Amino acid sequence: MSEQTATTNQPSGHSDLVADWDRLFRVFICPEGQASRATLIKYMDRILYGLNDFLKTNVGITEAISLKDLSERFTDTVINENPEKKLADVITCLIKDIAPHAVNVSSPYFVGHMTSAIPFFMVHLKTIITALNQNVVKLETSKVVSVVEKQVIAKIHRVIYNNTEAFYRQHVQNADSTLGVFTEGGTTANLTALWTARNAKFQPKNGFSRGIEAEGLAAAYRAWDIDRCVVLVSRRGHYSLRKAAGILGIGNDNVIPIDIGKNNRIDLSCLKRTIRRLETEEPRTCILAIVGVAGATETGTVDPLEDLAEISARINTHFHVDAAWGGPTLFSKKYRHLLKGISLANSVTMDGHKQFYMPMSCGMLYLKDPAALDVIAYHANYVNRMGSVDLGIKTLSGSREANSLILDSALKIMGAKGYALLIDHGIETAAAFAEEIKRRDLFELMTPPVLNILTYRICPPRIRAILNTADDDQRRAINEKLNTVNRRLQTIQRETGKSFVSRTTLLHNNNPNDAIVVLRSVIMNPMTTLAILNEILDEQERIFERELKGLLE
Amino acid sequence: MSEQTATTNQPSGHSDLVADWDRLFRVFICPEGQASRATLIKYMDRILYGLNDFLKTNVGITEAISLKDLSERFTDTVINENPEKKLADVITCLIKDIAPHAVNVSSPYFVGHMTSAIPFFMVHLKTIITALNQNVVKLETSKVVSVVEKQVIAKIHRVIYNNTEAFYRQHVQNADSTLGVFTEGGTTANLTALWTARNAKFQPKNGFSRGIEAEGLAAAYRAWDIDRCVVLVSRRGHYSLRKAAGILGIGNDNVIPIDIGKNNRIDLSCLKRTIRRLETEEPRTCILAIVGVAGATETGTVDPLEDLAEISARINTHFHVDAAWGGPTLFSKKYRHLLKGISLANSVTMDGHKQFYMPMSCGMLYLKDPAALDVIAYHANYVNRMGSVDLGIKTLSGSREANSLILDSALKIMGAKGYALLIDHGIETAAAFAEEIKRRDLFELMTPPVLNILTYRICPPRIRAILNTADDDQRRAINEKLNTVNRRLQTIQRETGKSFVSRTTLLHNNNPNDAIVVLRSVIMNPMTTLAILNEILDEQERIFERELKGLLE
Repeated sequence: MSEQTATTNQPSGHSDLVADWDRLFRVFICPEGQASRATLIKYMDRILYGLNDFLKTNVGITEAISLKDLSERFTDTVINENPEKKLADVITCLIKDIAPHAVNVSSPYFVGHMTSAIPFFMVHLKTIITALNQNVVKLETSKVVSVVEKQVIAKIHRVIYNNTEAFYRQHVQNADSTLGVFTEGGTTANLTALWTARNAKFQPKNGFSRGIEAEGLAAAYRAWDIDRCVVLVSRRGHYSLRKAAGILGIGNDNVIPIDIGKNNRIDLSCLKRTIRRLETEEPRTCILAIVGVAGATETGTVDPLEDLAEISARINTHFHVDAAWGGPTLFSKKYRHLLKGISLANSVTMDGHKQFYMPMSCGMLYLKDPAALDVIAYHANYVNRMGSVDLGIKTLSGSREANSLILDSALKIMGAKGYALLIDHGIETAAAFAEEIKRRDLFELMTPPVLNILTYRICPPRIRAILNTADDDQRRAINEKLNTVNRRLQTIQRETGKSFVSRTTLLHNNNPNDAIVVLRSVIMNPMTTLAILNEILDEQERIFERELKGLLE
Repeated sequence: MSEQTATTNQPSGHSDLVADWDRLFRVFICPEGQASRATLIKYMDRILYGLNDFLKTNVGITEAISLKDLSERFTDTVINENPEKKLADVITCLIKDIAPHAVNVSSPYFVGHMTSAIPFFMVHLKTIITALNQNVVKLETSKVVSVVEKQVIAKIHRVIYNNTEAFYRQHVQNADSTLGVFTEGGTTANLTALWTARNAKFQPKNGFSRGIEAEGLAAAYRAWDIDRCVVLVSRRGHYSLRKAAGILGIGNDNVIPIDIGKNNRIDLSCLKRTIRRLETEEPRTCILAIVGVAGATETGTVDPLEDLAEISARINTHFHVDAAWGGPTLFSKKYRHLLKGISLANSVTMDGHKQFYMPMSCGMLYLKDPAALDVIAYHANYVNRMGSVDLGIKTLSGSREANSLILDSALKIMGAKGYALLIDHGIETAAAFAEEIKRRDLFELMTPPVLNILTYRICPPRIRAILNTADDDQRRAINEKLNTVNRRLQTIQRETGKSFVSRTTLLHNNNPNDAIVVLRSVIMNPMTTLAILNEILDEQERIFERELKGLLE
């Protein structure tokens, strides 16, 4: 421990503030008097509407101040000995000094990432679960909330798997059944899925009596005569799958990227070839899982899930679907057919903070088999005792907030149809936006939308004509110039602060040496209309004309 | 995908509610009119004070309704097609139907777990970060919030490591430096620590050019001529360490529990013997990390961190300190000497939702070396690009809420001294409680408090006298009877609903076949006074007299 204290006695600002026992008591109890009660409500009013008014008068995404300038303002690393600010001043500071330099993700002009506006009632719901401060790791700190969590998990499980009423009656509140778990986000949901697949594959056997979770991966490979495990997923798979394989000891090089076809879906013949090659040439390699993508992060595309399920079943491997993005499409009668086959998955990732429009951070993993998570169960003496209904027994996380109450309430307020309307709006607006991009000469639509994500780039007709007849070297040279233009376009537009699209890098013909920088739009905000998208294209045309045209001459 | 929908058209309750586009627009925008604005504030008033009033009039921990009865009320797994309830009704239902069956963790009579009352301003702060909905995984969805996060991490790093002002100037806003990361909780913080230790140990080398994260654990062991890795921690280590070893492929059997001495700290001679045995008898075993506990979950005890640091340095292994519970003791000038040596740790876990009194869920990991997390870095094309300041590059999680804003604001509102007062109160109240337990004949103090946690049990003087002279078999038989009594006492008291202590199982002389059930008290709520603790003991005496005495005759 440090010999000297890293705190100081020099308060900055409020030199009259003193930390004492009276003050502590006041911050722990909501004051009794009507006056102080009114004060606290006034604070909440300021929070709800101060922020809202600010965001509305500042329609921009972010202010022009550079990151460097910002960084220089936040370098003081000493904690005051006494309080520095009162709550009212902290709130004011967050609204006036922090919010303006945060990112207005709720703007309909912010169409670059999977973070967007959330319905205002979500803020109320989060406030409730914060005030209740239940810890869902165990019944003793959550009671009914654990029961509600099991119920809402069964509700979503039903949307995915649509088993019989009898099935849900049997499992919904059964202490031994786990139809799904809440996680911090899609990353930990994917991690939990591969963790489960790994442990299910390397069960105890003769001479390996305790299994992989206890004895470790190296011992498991030795016992099962395996040199390596692989996970097969298209090049569109989320990077969290590589991260999960790295963490789990599988090795992220062993997440084998399968080429995609023209439609950005996994190339099934390529997948089959890879499987055949592994089976014939590498008898000591185990295919741990095949992952289908339902709403690729970069292109919003969906793999042929039924085919993947069939292939997975044939080679007896875990079939996981990463529907972190696309999952709620199941609410839409019009579009849920796009996810056909998802009910065949052993496990499905969904994200609450994406198309369920919940606040950060909330992920979920659903399991076809209510006993699947038994292979990752952990117990302790003071919680999660064997046979208890403590939800923490089968989760990666320990202490955990009750996001399930938010989801359950949101489903009641929105109805399945409310979510369907949002899904339909996104898909249909993206389709119209794609038509608009095609209509405009300056742009090239790179990946047409299937759900509500598309990519495009600036590529003037003259250049496109050259590309059509170019050989490999010429094409690469031209694309490099275009990449520079599109990269700079995205940066200029972001820094101008009025609107925001993101950018990513796709590959020409799956060739890692043939990278194409594209602009990426995610249409999830119901306020994002085609008119707004047109404004964004107009701005891009202007920026190109003014600042970037020369780069292509 | 399911052919039929799992949703229905029969709304229960509000048959007049319809999901349509107008309604959607209304829930996404805060209404402009003063009337609806007032309505929303009224809801917030109801949330803040409805809950508070309820909790105050119902001083109990939880209502008597059994889990079985509760479970039967939450079995409907069909999602309504149209909205089921309006926001106002959902809020009313959460306050009137859910809260009464949740657990009143804010009661000063709830002294059994590490979840407790939080200052009311925490609710306001959480509301702000929810309304801002920033995603700290990347700068493009957080901007200034990422900058603030780096700053507050440096502030806490300074409390732990107390490096020079120049050190913090250099690293606080440096894109390449990572002084710490926010995690979902202590479990993922501990996981991140061991992940880092694992990857640092198995760096790339000849014939293993990509390292363990890429090539996997089995390949790493082969390349480095290792059969297994072990992690050494006392029997008081948190179960998340075993979970982390299981996930990481190390195997949870390879977390070797080191016996503890009489004072519940790790037995250093036992640790040294274990190391010597491994070094001499198992040349192909690698000691990956030694973990010190700073605030054991069960007993609140603190390992001799300086000694552990010295031993770790001597054998060149990662030294991790799990200070999820005890970390904020560093704010107390009076008691921070208890954590002496923590500044020598390679990594330190702390929990925001424990003694920082933040809402669920918030963990943190701090690193002595600002480059330590380089071995777990991940990049993607659309975020976390190489060289960017995106915080998600070196975190287990992907999307993540901005809990750092809450911590930063809380430090300003409380001051270091505010936290110190809470720490001092807990430690001193626990000490007084221990004296009271010793004063009462019926109770036996099992583990005296070092921080603010202690364990005790019911053990009448007559039985204690017998135990003093009993042989092993007699002792075990008597302890089994006592275990039944204490187990039932805890359950009866919990179900009576007025107060709550938890229970856990400790070992007599580190012998796994000699388990002793104890009652466990965690004194973190500043409203928990000695008078209240006496009431809890009184109730236990009454329950024993009335219902359990006979079991010992």
